[in-house]
Amino acid sequence: MADKYDVIVLGSGPGGYVAAIRCAQLGLKTAIVERELLGGICLNWGCIPTKALLRSAEILHYAQHAKDYGLKIAGKIEADLEAVVKRSRGVAKQLNQGVTHLMKKNKITVHMGEGTLTGPTSLTVKGEKGEEKLSAKHVIVATGARARDLPFAPADGKRVWTYRHAMTPPEMPKKLLVIGSGAIGIEFASFYNDMGCEVTVVEMLDRIVPVEDKDVSAFLEKSLTKQGMTIMTGAGVEDLKVSDKGVKAKINPGSKSGAPGKAVETEFTHCIVAIGIVPNTENVGLEKLVEMDRGFIQIDDYGRTKSKGLWAIGDCTPGPWLAHKASHEGVTTAEAIAKELGNTDVHPHPLDRGNIPGCTYCHPQIASVGMTEAKAKEAGHEVKAGTFPFIGNGKAIALGEADGFVKTVFDAKTGELLGAHMVGAEVTEMIQGFVVGKTLETTEAELMRTVFPHPTISESMHESVLASYGRALHI
Amino acid sequence: MADKYDVIVLGSGPGGYVAAIRCAQLGLKTAIVERELLGGICLNWGCIPTKALLRSAEILHYAQHAKDYGLKIAGKIEADLEAVVKRSRGVAKQLNQGVTHLMKKNKITVHMGEGTLTGPTSLTVKGEKGEEKLSAKHVIVATGARARDLPFAPADGKRVWTYRHAMTPPEMPKKLLVIGSGAIGIEFASFYNDMGCEVTVVEMLDRIVPVEDKDVSAFLEKSLTKQGMTIMTGAGVEDLKVSDKGVKAKINPGSKSGAPGKAVETEFTHCIVAIGIVPNTENVGLEKLVEMDRGFIQIDDYGRTKSKGLWAIGDCTPGPWLAHKASHEGVTTAEAIAKELGNTDVHPHPLDRGNIPGCTYCHPQIASVGMTEAKAKEAGHEVKAGTFPFIGNGKAIALGEADGFVKTVFDAKTGELLGAHMVGAEVTEMIQGFVVGKTLETTEAELMRTVFPHPTISESMHESVLASYGRALHI
Repeated sequence: MADKYDVIVLGSGPGGYVAAIRCAQLGLKTAIVERELLGGICLNWGCIPTKALLRSAEILHYAQHAKDYGLKIAGKIEADLEAVVKRSRGVAKQLNQGVTHLMKKNKITVHMGEGTLTGPTSLTVKGEKGEEKLSAKHVIVATGARARDLPFAPADGKRVWTYRHAMTPPEMPKKLLVIGSGAIGIEFASFYNDMGCEVTVVEMLDRIVPVEDKDVSAFLEKSLTKQGMTIMTGAGVEDLKVSDKGVKAKINPGSKSGAPGKAVETEFTHCIVAIGIVPNTENVGLEKLVEMDRGFIQIDDYGRTKSKGLWAIGDCTPGPWLAHKASHEGVTTAEAIAKELGNTDVHPHPLDRGNIPGCTYCHPQIASVGMTEAKAKEAGHEVKAGTFPFIGNGKAIALGEADGFVKTVFDAKTGELLGAHMVGAEVTEMIQGFVVGKTLETTEAELMRTVFPHPTISESMHESVLASYGRALHI
Repeated sequence: MADKYDVIVLGSGPGGYVAAIRCAQLGLKTAIVERELLGGICLNWGCIPTKALLRSAEILHYAQHAKDYGLKIAGKIEADLEAVVKRSRGVAKQLNQGVTHLMKKNKITVHMGEGTLTGPTSLTVKGEKGEEKLSAKHVIVATGARARDLPFAPADGKRVWTYRHAMTPPEMPKKLLVIGSGAIGIEFASFYNDMGCEVTVVEMLDRIVPVEDKDVSAFLEKSLTKQGMTIMTGAGVEDLKVSDKGVKAKINPGSKSGAPGKAVETEFTHCIVAIGIVPNTENVGLEKLVEMDRGFIQIDDYGRTKSKGLWAIGDCTPGPWLAHKASHEGVTTAEAIAKELGNTDVHPHPLDRGNIPGCTYCHPQIASVGMTEAKAKEAGHEVKAGTFPFIGNGKAIALGEADGFVKTVFDAKTGELLGAHMVGAEVTEMIQGFVVGKTLETTEAELMRTVFPHPTISESMHESVLASYGRALHI
């Protein structure tokens, strides 16, 4: 039997559906298999609906501070949790329909159901209509990942939540424990805090958002504490007793507390567990076909597994586990497959893993790319680093958003931009400027002579570069 | 008599004060002369306080649309014009004090008063304390520009306003005529429209924001019209009769109206004249020292005039008349002077005039850099251009800001990025990514493989690049 498809993509998150679109653009007959909702976690339960929630919280914050801007609001300002969540679900639905449309437009066949590999390039799909057998010249695994559970208190959706539950809360938590201070934990902590909930964040490591530069962590901790959150670092949740009324958490406050090792029991109404992810690589038939490391599928720079014709991308492969990393891998892998199938016009380009930005949409926002100052030193670089605070930036002051800074890290010998780290308003939209710079292997000299428009917060990027060389103008 | 200063800067707008700071950083003994307020127009009457006004309008807009975000506001939402203006003036004052601090910190002597050149490197300053005679090895003229008046109805601050009056309105206009649709005209039109005023914009050319790409003009006209503004293009104000109660404008609706040449008289309560600028180059003693073209001082790439030791930067020199262009010229000229004075470590770099971004802070915002599609074709380029609408961007949808697009223009033969044009939320903070790319002479290939973070509106920049080559993913 001839293969019906050139490529089958298993999983329709941003990695999967982008891979499918790129395959289709390159003239390959493409199918996609999805067990739940087109668009995967990111569109339906991740990046997009959380941004919708955070937007409502942002507008709430503005309305509550209307007086600061010369506005008068006579009555009470309230968030209608049900309406906020409904809006978020509406946004997710719109995006999901968008992906459905993209599949149709690109003539990608959608097979809804649970896919299981029966060989490197063949699989069965169990859906509502029964079982289908599919095969293709190439298969791309893009099954993604899910939230990691606490071993002693698996998420139940009632009192113990993962991000999925936190996104459609059955009720407004009064007193919320957030375990883990990576992007997901901090975003929900920020959202619920803005919505008026009492929030405690417990982080095992010695600082929050531990992958960020330590200056960013310190700044954010101060800012979130000022906003009313309780932040515990170097701390651990040793046990969680769940009842109908809430959770009792045994929290070890850690060495910084002055009482290390002495766990204290505290009650919360709800708990969000955000301690990382687990790849969806069980029960897919992968065991004999690929190498795995802690469940993550091992791949080469183009997404190849050890089995010919079987590829993997996104969150089921080594990190960073970010949607934009997954979608770029999708493009690279689609092009590599097209090349193997004889297309001589495509030039697949491996992802530059040192140049993948990360964004956290708490308030203030965080965005970064490349090495932290500490990592750059660890890697043996002699470093020139500088920071510029938003309080020296006219636009930030005019916006009422002078809480933030930019930090840049350069190699002192070559002037190469090694990393950039930002916290404050608009930074998630700004970071791409440094990413473009890093793609083009920029040095400080080029960034210094680049004209950043006035008045923008992005001028702080320029000033930080100048500050790295002792030349900042506005401070 | 030995010169007391190495450098005297005449005028303390962004060009002037940045030039002074850079001179001081380079160890030059520096003075600055200012006749009114440190920071010049930009900080005190321009970029910064308008952004503060527009921020209030933005927050008002959010509060008025709170329901769309799932929020409940019980009472009336109103802008308190006096409070909005007071906040704006407060921001200007804070910035003005910031420049005062920067002068002090950098040990730059401030001479308050009206400066007049008595030779290339000598001047008198008439201030409150009488007249001082100053001289230096080098003088930088940074006297800026002011609003151009209508010949038949000079601004009186009562019914006929320039931007300065529009920034501190004595009362809220009911029916406002804005003459001119460049950045200043459109920003005030947008502000007053958001504040609830009835606004008509009259533009002489055939489209609004005529320096922008025509797709941007068309999009903005549609958007502003939808917001309730009346936009008249190809139209001219032939006469303006000013009374205590308002203005009567004789407006020729232009050839598009179907009744060309037939001017109609319409009444307005106020009128903002935003038809361009006039350089402040009279009464400064410049006539015999420099070449001028329509009042603008002619300079070389480093700011040199024809008189040795006399330099000029910013709005009193040829355009674009933008603060960030002025401040970069300030740095270049300061470094060129330091070099002439024997500093061998500085390497002044002339401004790349093809890579100066422009931003307009109306709602939706505009940002652009480089050539429009039409200009690129005029210049002989074979062009590849593409656009990407925000409606295909998840973050824009989540923010409730799906009204906008990005357009990119490439040279079809070399792949060089020639220009980028954006309209919509956050674009003023995003444009720098393309500016950095252009500094580094990027081509489409590098931008395509750059990982723009998800979910951000900046992904639309990436998609527009892909669209220019028929490869957009999300549309």
